[in-house]
Amino acid sequence: MKKFRVGILGATGVVGQRFIQLLEGHPQFEIAALAASDRSQGKTYAEACKWRLPGDMPGHVKEVVVQSPAPPLDCDLVFSSLPTDIATDAETQFALAGYPVISNSSSHRMGADIPLLIPEVNPGHVALIDTQRKNRGYDRGFIVTNPNCSAIAVVMALAPLHAEFGITSCVVTTMQALSGAGYPGVASLDATDNVIPFIGGEEEKIEAETLKLLGQLGQGIIDNAKMSVSAQCNRVNVTDGHLASIRVKLSQSASLDQVKETLSSFRAVPQELKLHSAPIRPVIVRDEVDRPQPRLDRDAENGMSVTVGRIMPDNVLDFRFVALGHNTIRGAAGAAILNAELLVARGYLNHA
Amino acid sequence: MKKFRVGILGATGVVGQRFIQLLEGHPQFEIAALAASDRSQGKTYAEACKWRLPGDMPGHVKEVVVQSPAPPLDCDLVFSSLPTDIATDAETQFALAGYPVISNSSSHRMGADIPLLIPEVNPGHVALIDTQRKNRGYDRGFIVTNPNCSAIAVVMALAPLHAEFGITSCVVTTMQALSGAGYPGVASLDATDNVIPFIGGEEEKIEAETLKLLGQLGQGIIDNAKMSVSAQCNRVNVTDGHLASIRVKLSQSASLDQVKETLSSFRAVPQELKLHSAPIRPVIVRDEVDRPQPRLDRDAENGMSVTVGRIMPDNVLDFRFVALGHNTIRGAAGAAILNAELLVARGYLNHA
Amino acid sequence: MKKFRVGILGATGVVGQRFIQLLEGHPQFEIAALAASDRSQGKTYAEACKWRLPGDMPGHVKEVVVQSPAPPLDCDLVFSSLPTDIATDAETQFALAGYPVISNSSSHRMGADIPLLIPEVNPGHVALIDTQRKNRGYDRGFIVTNPNCSAIAVVMALAPLHAEFGITSCVVTTMQALSGAGYPGVASLDATDNVIPFIGGEEEKIEAETLKLLGQLGQGIIDNAKMSVSAQCNRVNVTDGHLASIRVKLSQSASLDQVKETLSSFRAVPQELKLHSAPIRPVIVRDEVDRPQPRLDRDAENGMSVTVGRIMPDNVLDFRFVALGHNTIRGAAGAAILNAELLVARGYLNHA
Amino acid sequence: MKKFRVGILGATGVVGQRFIQLLEGHPQFEIAALAASDRSQGKTYAEACKWRLPGDMPGHVKEVVVQSPAPPLDCDLVFSSLPTDIATDAETQFALAGYPVISNSSSHRMGADIPLLIPEVNPGHVALIDTQRKNRGYDRGFIVTNPNCSAIAVVMALAPLHAEFGITSCVVTTMQALSGAGYPGVASLDATDNVIPFIGGEEEKIEAETLKLLGQLGQGIIDNAKMSVSAQCNRVNVTDGHLASIRVKLSQSASLDQVKETLSSFRAVPQELKLHSAPIRPVIVRDEVDRPQPRLDRDAENGMSVTVGRIMPDNVLDFRFVALGHNTIRGAAGAAILNAELLVARGYLNHA
Repeated sequence: MKKFRVGILGATGVVGQRFIQLLEGHPQFEIAALAASDRSQGKTYAEACKWRLPGDMPGHVKEVVVQSPAPPLDCDLVFSSLPTDIATDAETQFALAGYPVISNSSSHRMGADIPLLIPEVNPGHVALIDTQRKNRGYDRGFIVTNPNCSAIAVVMALAPLHAEFGITSCVVTTMQALSGAGYPGVASLDATDNVIPFIGGEEEKIEAETLKLLGQLGQGIIDNAKMSVSAQCNRVNVTDGHLASIRVKLSQSASLDQVKETLSSFRAVPQELKLHSAPIRPVIVRDEVDRPQPRLDRDAENGMSVTVGRIMPDNVLDFRFVALGHNTIRGAAGAAILNAELLVARGYLNHA
Repeated sequence: MKKFRVGILGATGVVGQRFIQLLEGHPQFEIAALAASDRSQGKTYAEACKWRLPGDMPGHVKEVVVQSPAPPLDCDLVFSSLPTDIATDAETQFALAGYPVISNSSSHRMGADIPLLIPEVNPGHVALIDTQRKNRGYDRGFIVTNPNCSAIAVVMALAPLHAEFGITSCVVTTMQALSGAGYPGVASLDATDNVIPFIGGEEEKIEAETLKLLGQLGQGIIDNAKMSVSAQCNRVNVTDGHLASIRVKLSQSASLDQVKETLSSFRAVPQELKLHSAPIRPVIVRDEVDRPQPRLDRDAENGMSVTVGRIMPDNVLDFRFVALGHNTIRGAAGAAILNAELLVARGYLNHA
Repeated sequence: MKKFRVGILGATGVVGQRFIQLLEGHPQFEIAALAASDRSQGKTYAEACKWRLPGDMPGHVKEVVVQSPAPPLDCDLVFSSLPTDIATDAETQFALAGYPVISNSSSHRMGADIPLLIPEVNPGHVALIDTQRKNRGYDRGFIVTNPNCSAIAVVMALAPLHAEFGITSCVVTTMQALSGAGYPGVASLDATDNVIPFIGGEEEKIEAETLKLLGQLGQGIIDNAKMSVSAQCNRVNVTDGHLASIRVKLSQSASLDQVKETLSSFRAVPQELKLHSAPIRPVIVRDEVDRPQPRLDRDAENGMSVTVGRIMPDNVLDFRFVALGHNTIRGAAGAAILNAELLVARGYLNHA
Repeated sequence: MKKFRVGILGATGVVGQRFIQLLEGHPQFEIAALAASDRSQGKTYAEACKWRLPGDMPGHVKEVVVQSPAPPLDCDLVFSSLPTDIATDAETQFALAGYPVISNSSSHRMGADIPLLIPEVNPGHVALIDTQRKNRGYDRGFIVTNPNCSAIAVVMALAPLHAEFGITSCVVTTMQALSGAGYPGVASLDATDNVIPFIGGEEEKIEAETLKLLGQLGQGIIDNAKMSVSAQCNRVNVTDGHLASIRVKLSQSASLDQVKETLSSFRAVPQELKLHSAPIRPVIVRDEVDRPQPRLDRDAENGMSVTVGRIMPDNVLDFRFVALGHNTIRGAAGAAILNAELLVARGYLNHA
């Protein structure tokens, strides 16, 4: 099979680097262009990027010259992890110019005709692309987004319960990793021996995105899920891996065993289609009293699984548990790549 | 005034060291005896104790010989931070032998006739001492306890709201410091780059102690507060300072401003009596979006204040906020010392 | 005594905040003006500065309007912790305009007529001020500097040995705290679970400043000490406190006991003059096998002492030991304030 | 090829777990028996071992019953990471009973007839096995050891320079990871926001082992290298990866370029024999000013390479640089496995 040639917008950032790492040896995609919004344009990637991941920068991108994040780029589609302020316009321009845009940026997520997509949760929302093209006059191009890095972990744990029992309210308290703030991101003097009980815009994102993700696609629009969501977000001194303490109130009564079974047996479209990046178990349930832990569980199934533990009844809502996801893999670059794999399977991506 | 001569049970542990540090120069108490449950008996304190606090071990305790935690000890009262398994019997023996026992251990906290005391919250519960003495045949002795280190910070923030508006349910998620586990406590390989979503017995303690602390003393018994409490507890990589994300549902409607004002204007018995260790502001309300933080706020008013921030409306319950307290000062040794100061003021302590 | 009215240049930075904290209640100095190089000019200090130290910003500076770091400022002298690129010109302008400049910046340290001063080590170097005034045509003004934050801790430990036995070579390996890089400084993703074996310019500074500090003042010039110094510098995940592993080769033979005794009995001019900020013991020698440690020893004598431990013979040089100093107190703001106190005692400071 | 059936002594510890992880899918070895010195005997490995590495315990060992670390065990050879106090006797018993013992313990390292082996450094020392068998009356059995976890990283960086130019003295300052202390090892309250300038026995081990490793095998005995070695060891808040600041004085003069070239071009017997675990580049030289760093470089070539950087001239000795190795892979379990691979290649291992 001929690979799709992809461009990466925001290639020098923490998530951009993850895109490059995760696309190494990918059977469907190969990197054809790198773009960044900063002063790195015109330099080679090796010059422009301070590689922050363990190991070396892959050799094949070192000499690629970084371009401006604007069309035309010589590629079939683009992955975007541009900063929000730039992403809004840049992604629109690419879509107008005929490029599928698979975005990790927050700019377009809440657009009424923009799929906010987790392939295991709401694969049917891809059909919004048709509405979007009609609304916006896009021809070949479109924009598809993945959720916020903490919303993904939370919603992957909520989705099986919502499908099976209905959720009426949900209380989420996150303990989020430093890499979620990008690089340089959080100052070490703020991170060491400390917790910061604030992440700008994060609580609002979790509260809003959850309703859209668990919503139903009607006549070209999403009916938000009917539930209340409360999020309090904290930054903790962890490199990777967002942890969340979660309580849920269910519409229907359920036993503790049913809740555990529903989570551990969860399989969805990416597993059925055997998408390349799909984990075998999208939700892993652990029984040890002290799991999940970021350092031990974030890399489960190459960082694409969400691990849930400490499932038990709750005094105020019905059940509580703890969920963990790798924020720059499942919560960002890996999320976008899995979205792209679903779009290939659904016929939305074509060679230029 | 002649000082009370105090014995410290569990003197070599993390909390025992805090007792010694906080009692230096105290106007009402002086250290007369040190006891510990381990192999340190018969050694001098300098030999027996690896001093873990910044600065040097106070000179006056270095040559004190560590004794067994059993009566008789040459002192007027004892502070206890014995391990739970030993505290149950040892504290009972001291009370029987006529010693007031001011305990930080969890053993007796939930006893029906044992005051579980925060002087700002439920000072009237000291009257349980009379019931206790009658029940148990104690003459001069008695047992008074302070709550769990995280429960104190949580309940000090809840108490003003409960008094003013009533609380019907409360959802607490803690991020607790390493010193709460004692020494050696948490292994560094578990703490570094990690969060542990489990602290043995902690969730149950917060849920139970909150109801007793906010309860009403009737005819010699406590009527627990009528509310639901849910606690999820996490250990984070912080040396000192327990942080809690809290949501509350109130009995009466209240505006955001009323909630803020109720918390920031809170003053109680210890402030009226000007007890030596009492903070001027038992609850400090901060307006910055990113406070409280353990490293910046744990030492507020010598570690005796609880700092609250991020007060805002909540989608699921009524309001949410973040509270922080120093776990080995306000949450342990300082709590017990303030309890002793209240008992002096109330006439429950006498020279031997 | 009438207090000297001081201005602080670089008042919003990490060291500037320490100046303000350490000058609270100082018997000789009071803050009269605040200046900063950034966009904070014209704002109140409360608006301009994100206070990074535990506790609250002192109330008396909150409403002070931040000015430009250029003369005139309404004060008798200035403390400077300006960034290097700005300090060179700004400090010269203040000296020309008649202000004594007590600087923590590196810009002028190695100037041939600039005292690089540690009051315990080379108090006589203050006489360079006379040369400096003559050379540069300064009238009342002058510039005095303190060393780099790691050089101070190292040289305070070397000085007694150099005075007693002579040092011919010295090998220093530092493990330096995050606060030494200012704020935001080191990115948390670089600091957590990591060591960075590089601090720009630091190795050169230690190697050069040590020779000047231990040099002799001759006819208006410093004869550098005749020794070889090798420094390797590492950034470790510690908030405050620079630790150094040090080996020395001595000119004269000495026993281990003599080395220990020479360090622990060291007293110097600031102790004789009882300068306000002078520690009673400028060098504290500890015997425990595992001390000094940053968290336990950095605050010794209010952060003004250097703690030395693990003194033992060395296979390659003659002796080795470990030294620790608080980098933003003894290594920066406290160093400058002690310099100012010496200058008062020596008659170099006068009321404007 | 028929695989060798191996037993692991000390299987439940940090290094024992690494053995199991690194032997998964190994072409020459398969795990046949697990033994441990603690109360885990008789339990299944899943019951006995708290798995501390990211990811799950390999399925194939979960049901293996943990045995006593004493012969007989049903296997062809044993890997040992037993605690020192037990290792001395236990390893001797296994060797006497005919088992090759490939040990990571320190007990036998300095025995005159025991190979202390790094395959890239002193592969010829395996011939000591013949002397050992004769001396001790071993038949099929023998003991081979690998060095201390920090000595390995240091000596791999020294060996090419020693071979090419001779080294007369070496000054090493280490910053060592928490995993080097085992589990639970260092208390988190000692590790967080701190450095501990002491690791029991470590300085002595580096100083002694280096001389033996770089020594020459003569008539059945090792002539230690003629050099002086000074080591100061510090524990830093890093999970894995020992970093060392190193200075060397050479016998022959060398240019900076020659030093760099000698290190970066270093290849040895394991590379020639293409041993399964051998890295392609045993020493990786990096040119960035701020590398190596534990978090970024410890996993180079699966954790089997040592990374060197910051090579430059030194004021006191001749050259200085920084070296990093993964302490539980290259410095422990991986070292022992590579030793075993060399022993297979040299014909010292046979099927039982």
